[in-house]
Amino acid sequence: MTYCVGMLLDKGMAFMSDTRTNSGVDNISTFRKMFSWSVPGERFITMMTAGNLATTQALISQLEERTKAPSERKPSILEAPTMFQVANIIGTTLRDTIAARALTGPVAASPAPNFNASVIVGGQIAGMEPRLYLIYPEGNFIEASPETPFFQIGETKYGRPILVRGFESHMSFADITKLLMVSFDSTLKANLSVGLPLDLMLYRNDDFAPFHERRITADDPYFEKISDSWSEALRNAFHSLPDYELDA
Amino acid sequence: MTYCVGMLLDKGMAFMSDTRTNSGVDNISTFRKMFSWSVPGERFITMMTAGNLATTQALISQLEERTKAPSERKPSILEAPTMFQVANIIGTTLRDTIAARALTGPVAASPAPNFNASVIVGGQIAGMEPRLYLIYPEGNFIEASPETPFFQIGETKYGRPILVRGFESHMSFADITKLLMVSFDSTLKANLSVGLPLDLMLYRNDDFAPFHERRITADDPYFEKISDSWSEALRNAFHSLPDYELDA
Repeated sequence: MTYCVGMLLDKGMAFMSDTRTNSGVDNISTFRKMFSWSVPGERFITMMTAGNLATTQALISQLEERTKAPSERKPSILEAPTMFQVANIIGTTLRDTIAARALTGPVAASPAPNFNASVIVGGQIAGMEPRLYLIYPEGNFIEASPETPFFQIGETKYGRPILVRGFESHMSFADITKLLMVSFDSTLKANLSVGLPLDLMLYRNDDFAPFHERRITADDPYFEKISDSWSEALRNAFHSLPDYELDA
Repeated sequence: MTYCVGMLLDKGMAFMSDTRTNSGVDNISTFRKMFSWSVPGERFITMMTAGNLATTQALISQLEERTKAPSERKPSILEAPTMFQVANIIGTTLRDTIAARALTGPVAASPAPNFNASVIVGGQIAGMEPRLYLIYPEGNFIEASPETPFFQIGETKYGRPILVRGFESHMSFADITKLLMVSFDSTLKANLSVGLPLDLMLYRNDDFAPFHERRITADDPYFEKISDSWSEALRNAFHSLPDYELDA
């Protein structure tokens, strides 16, 4: 599994992903799930992937190849005129990648092998607003809006309650980072298939490059501090709630 | 979906379940998922069910019939000598119920209809310790222990982080009730398939009857207060954490 969160903020965007991939519990590896491209002064694109690793690696390779070979006829995400077009290119490539594998795979396998993957992509192109999309395995996608300002993919449920209660789009980047760490810590504590290190990327509007990028490892002092003090803070929060009165 | 939690405490046991069942999002009903039997001074059994409603209703009906017809040859949960035997009877009945439906159903349906269900059962028989079991659709089961003192079934993920961090087996019944309400509130806020009212049952060791039983409806003042103040308390907890220092 995987856990990735992308957020659309007033001041920019925030992305965080874990790096654990597993096929069963005894085949665990670390793979980067966050990829970004940037053209100084012109565009910035970050994407995060969840799902079948062969699918997501093939997807990234195809997108990379396209960005590296400008003579290629098909449209590239570095040439697309809008973020909508970028999402469209990624969605189509993702759908085709999954379809290609499904045809190759053993048809009668039971249960059917799952080549699915999903993607969060966010970015900004000069002269336009930043955009954040969630792309489904079918290739279609939805866009973040003030009502739904963040997307999660992968093992999303454990870390959702704190995001639902804590997220506000006007938060500072420091607070957003803290919120993401709490959400990831809750997930790590509950699910073995999501693991450290984490990748963090923060983007400020109209910068066309991330202004903060960091890999958070197991011995990261801030993450350790958050993880420890969150238990304590949660307990205090819990005890601050009104007591239940038992009639017996 | 469903959300049920059963807990083994130093002082007794606690059970909470929601009451929403749905088949799609436009076919929503309210059904009780918590059932209990008690023989004054001799035994107390509570069970909660998650999964296919037809399966769980058939399971309860069969268990009820058995308790009502003492001449019936098969063992009854009110006659079983130990809680282990009670769990065994429920597990076998559950497995047979699912198997009977699977044979009747359309074999070629795709995706295969899911008749699965799982059960949490807790109770005490005079002269023995209270026991808490989680029963799988296959009929096998596991028992709660000091290392794993609570079980969840149904939509378990949203409400798990607070249980993992907050639960202690020496907590008072009032604190346990508060903890359960926070866990259920986090789930209700995130998932439409879990819904009010909630059923609460508290059992004190060697009572052989619940000492507190309550249906928590949408206008329950305590639940409303918890739900409102938890948002505030979480925000305060969040702000009490050390700040992330951005180098930019």
